[in-house]
Amino acid sequence: MKLLLQEIRRNPLLWLLVFVPIALAAEKFNHEAHTLHFVLSVLAILPLAVLLSHATESVAAKTGDSVGGLLNATLGNLTELVIAIAALQAGQYTLVKASVAGAIVTNSLFMLGASFLLGGLRYHLQEFNRIAARFQAGLLFLAAVGLLIPSAVSEHETLGKAGLNQELSLALSFLLLLAYGLGLWFSLNTHRELFASAAEEHEAAWPIGLALVSEVFVGSVQFAATTFGMSPAFVGFIIVALVGAAAEMAAAFSAAQKNRLDLSVGIALGSAAQIALFVAPVLVLLSYVIGPAPMDLNLWPGAVAMILFATLTASLVTTSGRSTWFVGVLTIVVYLMFATALYLLPPAANK
Amino acid sequence: MKLLLQEIRRNPLLWLLVFVPIALAAEKFNHEAHTLHFVLSVLAILPLAVLLSHATESVAAKTGDSVGGLLNATLGNLTELVIAIAALQAGQYTLVKASVAGAIVTNSLFMLGASFLLGGLRYHLQEFNRIAARFQAGLLFLAAVGLLIPSAVSEHETLGKAGLNQELSLALSFLLLLAYGLGLWFSLNTHRELFASAAEEHEAAWPIGLALVSEVFVGSVQFAATTFGMSPAFVGFIIVALVGAAAEMAAAFSAAQKNRLDLSVGIALGSAAQIALFVAPVLVLLSYVIGPAPMDLNLWPGAVAMILFATLTASLVTTSGRSTWFVGVLTIVVYLMFATALYLLPPAANK
Amino acid sequence: MKLLLQEIRRNPLLWLLVFVPIALAAEKFNHEAHTLHFVLSVLAILPLAVLLSHATESVAAKTGDSVGGLLNATLGNLTELVIAIAALQAGQYTLVKASVAGAIVTNSLFMLGASFLLGGLRYHLQEFNRIAARFQAGLLFLAAVGLLIPSAVSEHETLGKAGLNQELSLALSFLLLLAYGLGLWFSLNTHRELFASAAEEHEAAWPIGLALVSEVFVGSVQFAATTFGMSPAFVGFIIVALVGAAAEMAAAFSAAQKNRLDLSVGIALGSAAQIALFVAPVLVLLSYVIGPAPMDLNLWPGAVAMILFATLTASLVTTSGRSTWFVGVLTIVVYLMFATALYLLPPAANK
Repeated sequence: MKLLLQEIRRNPLLWLLVFVPIALAAEKFNHEAHTLHFVLSVLAILPLAVLLSHATESVAAKTGDSVGGLLNATLGNLTELVIAIAALQAGQYTLVKASVAGAIVTNSLFMLGASFLLGGLRYHLQEFNRIAARFQAGLLFLAAVGLLIPSAVSEHETLGKAGLNQELSLALSFLLLLAYGLGLWFSLNTHRELFASAAEEHEAAWPIGLALVSEVFVGSVQFAATTFGMSPAFVGFIIVALVGAAAEMAAAFSAAQKNRLDLSVGIALGSAAQIALFVAPVLVLLSYVIGPAPMDLNLWPGAVAMILFATLTASLVTTSGRSTWFVGVLTIVVYLMFATALYLLPPAANK
Repeated sequence: MKLLLQEIRRNPLLWLLVFVPIALAAEKFNHEAHTLHFVLSVLAILPLAVLLSHATESVAAKTGDSVGGLLNATLGNLTELVIAIAALQAGQYTLVKASVAGAIVTNSLFMLGASFLLGGLRYHLQEFNRIAARFQAGLLFLAAVGLLIPSAVSEHETLGKAGLNQELSLALSFLLLLAYGLGLWFSLNTHRELFASAAEEHEAAWPIGLALVSEVFVGSVQFAATTFGMSPAFVGFIIVALVGAAAEMAAAFSAAQKNRLDLSVGIALGSAAQIALFVAPVLVLLSYVIGPAPMDLNLWPGAVAMILFATLTASLVTTSGRSTWFVGVLTIVVYLMFATALYLLPPAANK
Repeated sequence: MKLLLQEIRRNPLLWLLVFVPIALAAEKFNHEAHTLHFVLSVLAILPLAVLLSHATESVAAKTGDSVGGLLNATLGNLTELVIAIAALQAGQYTLVKASVAGAIVTNSLFMLGASFLLGGLRYHLQEFNRIAARFQAGLLFLAAVGLLIPSAVSEHETLGKAGLNQELSLALSFLLLLAYGLGLWFSLNTHRELFASAAEEHEAAWPIGLALVSEVFVGSVQFAATTFGMSPAFVGFIIVALVGAAAEMAAAFSAAQKNRLDLSVGIALGSAAQIALFVAPVLVLLSYVIGPAPMDLNLWPGAVAMILFATLTASLVTTSGRSTWFVGVLTIVVYLMFATALYLLPPAANK
């Protein structure tokens, strides 16, 4: 508790913790003020995500390197997972899928690009471990192919057996998890010397608080979207993704400004790969247990295209192992183009 | 004027200048001979394009390095811009778009491939500055994504608000121009040491002559196409693109044969990137001022696919910084495949 | 004959030769037992493919390096060609196309990936000649573009002239053969120093036996598919491709385990490139002579997408010239994803 107070003094983002009880109280006493709930829950999620990310790092640090690395890698996207599970229980599958796709695109374009830009504004030329970047870009590419298949096949759905997409999504989920597991084994065990790792120690964790606030967030986000005139695709893809990744972004940007681009690229591409190969398939499996109906991996074609081009972009800009500010600009402009299209899209188009 | 005569003696292409008055006179006295106008205007545009390109280089050389580089880079595709503006004023938007797409594809495949081939026939193995090539391939990739979005979205147009494509094209045009401007700033200012530059000095400029002849060309090109049995897509993509880039091609090929592949790759990819990130968005903005109606960036899907694969091909063949004659063959065959498909395509298919 | 017996003693696969007469006899005496014919013909094709591949290598070794290399490269996929010709004569164009597409995908994903995996399980880090790999990936990319064009254009077929796809496929076939021929000239003559070659000597050849058994195989494969509940797309893509490439696979895997990854990558990507640039266009030309009707290159969109992503994957995993076991896992999982989708696809979807 003392450590928590120290932490709060050091990190101004944690002052937002005051919004956690406010958001929960507002939800209890005023059911209809959806826009208020939305704003309060965003303000409350941000510090909780920071605390949660510190907590997993601290657990990781205590359990020894190899298991710790596994925990660290797997739990890094717990915020996204908790938000997505809340949406899953509410049966909001369109929001779940949009937020998964959006998290992949936001992490591999915006988080990566802004890291390059912020680092590049301070240093003329930055270098990073391109073998690690290539490994994660490879995982991301695999996931992009996996997410592409159900969408391509679903055009045939009318031709044949019902439930094809369901079976296919289940099989692909197992293949993605298999690749993810073997990838962890590869990077933490057999070839760990190829990967530079960097862990820091922290304290305190309130995942239960995060789960409660996430429910308020998910319950209000669609209403708030309508109020602010944003399409659901834009909300899921951009707003939820940015809120969910706030903690990682803070870490990635601060590392880039300290010329530790290895860490930035690792966080950005690692998060994107994890969501694609771990969070997405786990959500499919969880939907059989806690969801109102099984969920498939079938995204709308535009989302698949964005994931594909985000992966290609990330792969192209990391292939040389060097970066300047303009590489960041290029990557961010691709993201802004996608965001513009999503913002202008009519509300019905993302179904 | 004395310099112009010297120039004419050195460069046989300039003998074609005699067709400038002939083309203008033929247009005035015989309105219906479209095939004749087409042939005469092609013969007249070629030397004018050469003169124009010399002129911009000479202006560039006089105004100092940094501003000169900017002018040189931006005015290098003035021929394409003048032809496209003539088509814009005539309201021939299909021709404008086909010629923009065609110029990107022709420059990044044919001009690049033929440079590799011509250089490779004389030298066993050639090297070039792959950082500069990667920079321009990156810009090209960005533009390909930008041109892909309106086409992908236009399939949703029926679902929602009219004018979506118009708004989107305008927003994307600003983003492309922003990226282009920052790219110039990057390559001419903050990181100019990464880019080898090569400028030569020349004299004389008749942009007005070019503008007049371009109008004859645009007025006759579609009729000539019908006469020769070519589809409008083939004319816009291949014929207009080859005519518009004649001057740059002469420069790129001659540099390749002198083992200065840096210059060839720079001209080919630089021109393609410029047309995609500068000429195309400027035409969209100009259409609000001088066109009969606003123009969007919405190309037909085949054109988008060709731009995408041209970009991928250019990116793959320049990634190693080395070239042999067979790399040129590979690149040219991709171009020939596209040209064959366009030639065989029924006239209605490119709409 | 003595050499053949020695060979049989050394290579247990050749014991399967006993199934050659059995398969032919079964076909003669019992016309309706399709599943039996299928199993027997698979068992008979395997050793024949091994013998055929030894035979072409031995002819190659005898005729001197340059012509021998040409023969070796061109005849390496004779098994696929013989099977495809049998299907062509039977007018089974869907099977022909599926087996061509499947052979490209199987060789560039499964054969390559399993080589990386098997080599990587024994050696921590393996290196190979990445210039040769890039050359073959480039050829493969060219072919992928070539196979993409007819499918993209065929959506316009309803708009215009009939027979467009036929003309286009013929023109593209000539372009692919031209590129293939120039590629051989490049790799065997003008720039042979860039390519490491490895030839071994063997004896004996029964191409006629293979042709006879192939007919039994093609005649029974569709019936067997129905019996086993497999979709025709799965059979053509996966089963025929694996049977047709059995001999090359044995060679590629054994080379990988001996840390001769150059040879493995060369066999895998070389076979894929050959089928795409030599076997496919030759089959189109042959269809005018021996087929019931001209065949085009128009594949179903899913097959084109798989070829494209197989090419991209192969290109990404070979670009660094290094390999570990996990690169093999990544490549194989992409293949398994495709195989899963094909297996689950309803029978009507691949038309």
